[in-house]
Amino acid sequence: MAAPTTFSGEVWAELRLADARDVPHIHSLIHQMAEFELLTDLFAATHELLASTLFPTPQPAPFTSFTALILDLSPSPAPASADTVGSRRLDLSASPLADPEAAAFPSPRGGGRVTAGFVICFPNYSTFLAKPGLYVEDIFVRAPWRRRGLGRMMLSAVAGRAAEIGMGRVEWCVLDWNQNAIDFYEGMGAEVFKQWRICRLTGPALDKYKGTGSQEEEDAGGKAQ
Amino acid sequence: MAAPTTFSGEVWAELRLADARDVPHIHSLIHQMAEFELLTDLFAATHELLASTLFPTPQPAPFTSFTALILDLSPSPAPASADTVGSRRLDLSASPLADPEAAAFPSPRGGGRVTAGFVICFPNYSTFLAKPGLYVEDIFVRAPWRRRGLGRMMLSAVAGRAAEIGMGRVEWCVLDWNQNAIDFYEGMGAEVFKQWRICRLTGPALDKYKGTGSQEEEDAGGKAQ
Repeated sequence: MAAPTTFSGEVWAELRLADARDVPHIHSLIHQMAEFELLTDLFAATHELLASTLFPTPQPAPFTSFTALILDLSPSPAPASADTVGSRRLDLSASPLADPEAAAFPSPRGGGRVTAGFVICFPNYSTFLAKPGLYVEDIFVRAPWRRRGLGRMMLSAVAGRAAEIGMGRVEWCVLDWNQNAIDFYEGMGAEVFKQWRICRLTGPALDKYKGTGSQEEEDAGGKAQ
Repeated sequence: MAAPTTFSGEVWAELRLADARDVPHIHSLIHQMAEFELLTDLFAATHELLASTLFPTPQPAPFTSFTALILDLSPSPAPASADTVGSRRLDLSASPLADPEAAAFPSPRGGGRVTAGFVICFPNYSTFLAKPGLYVEDIFVRAPWRRRGLGRMMLSAVAGRAAEIGMGRVEWCVLDWNQNAIDFYEGMGAEVFKQWRICRLTGPALDKYKGTGSQEEEDAGGKAQ
């Protein structure tokens, strides 16, 4: 059963663990996200890099290392499996939903499912709690499927799973000018930290530190501090 | 050889991989950091939690999971070992350095070494690069040893190791009012991101998401968005 390009009536959303068969769609979705953020110049992901970094052999347990989740929409009820992390039923009977890209995003799970989004997350660590937390690097939903509670379902489901396995925190980032997103996250119970800033070393600025492990003290006139 | 409480002449600093014998000092140093940041109310680390989360059996390879590093100061030259990540020679001949707490921080590596700081870091992931990076959660140096280039050595050494193993980025956080730290990090080549804010779900606000994986669509009058 091929994915339709127009969805009507009831539709079942499933957030599930990804596997290597999802790499082409993950790659396309990351590229859409880069376009949305006007950051395509930073986009360097390839199928090969995604497969080797997200789906190594052996695959660590979910949420213990880099973890990719896929949002699939199904035109028929999809029973939960061991891979299901979250689900949501949408009622489109009042107005059908057009997904012009559906034919480009058939889910490898079949059954007429279409892939509409993804999550990438990984453990972080709180020294004060001496416990792992979960950092959500990306939550992305393709444009036609936005504003239907799917982002909330995805973040809720991931937070729920993190809490269930004993993690102490769930963290992610938001842009300070995106007040809609800030209001949404605060409404979900999140605290937004106003004073912390992220610092990043990358590219040549990072490469120059190769081999710098051993240092002599600099002269008093030097830049030591 | 017990650690002296006053150091003079040449002193050798070593940043090395930690092991379970370092747990009591890591615990004390995290508590000092919580005092410094006026956040002791958030301090919930115990020896048992630190040991089980930082030094599980089997221990993953350094920098592939939660990784703890220890800063030891040695009154005699300390040859680099497989555990050495960075080193620095200090010349205290002009003015001896008093470390009143030295007797409380003997390094388990012996040889008169005293433990003076730690680093906690772990891999993060960039979807645009499809590559792991390294997130530095904490860098801490006990008060008497500050302003001698040890923080720079620690961050440089960790960044160098990350670059050498092919990581695409090194990231950490700074408080926006700490202009000295921002200037220091920018001088090291880091970019400070002004617009990103960290969001966090923790405690009861996180626990309420347990078991929320399956959702029915909310009524039009509900809070769905």
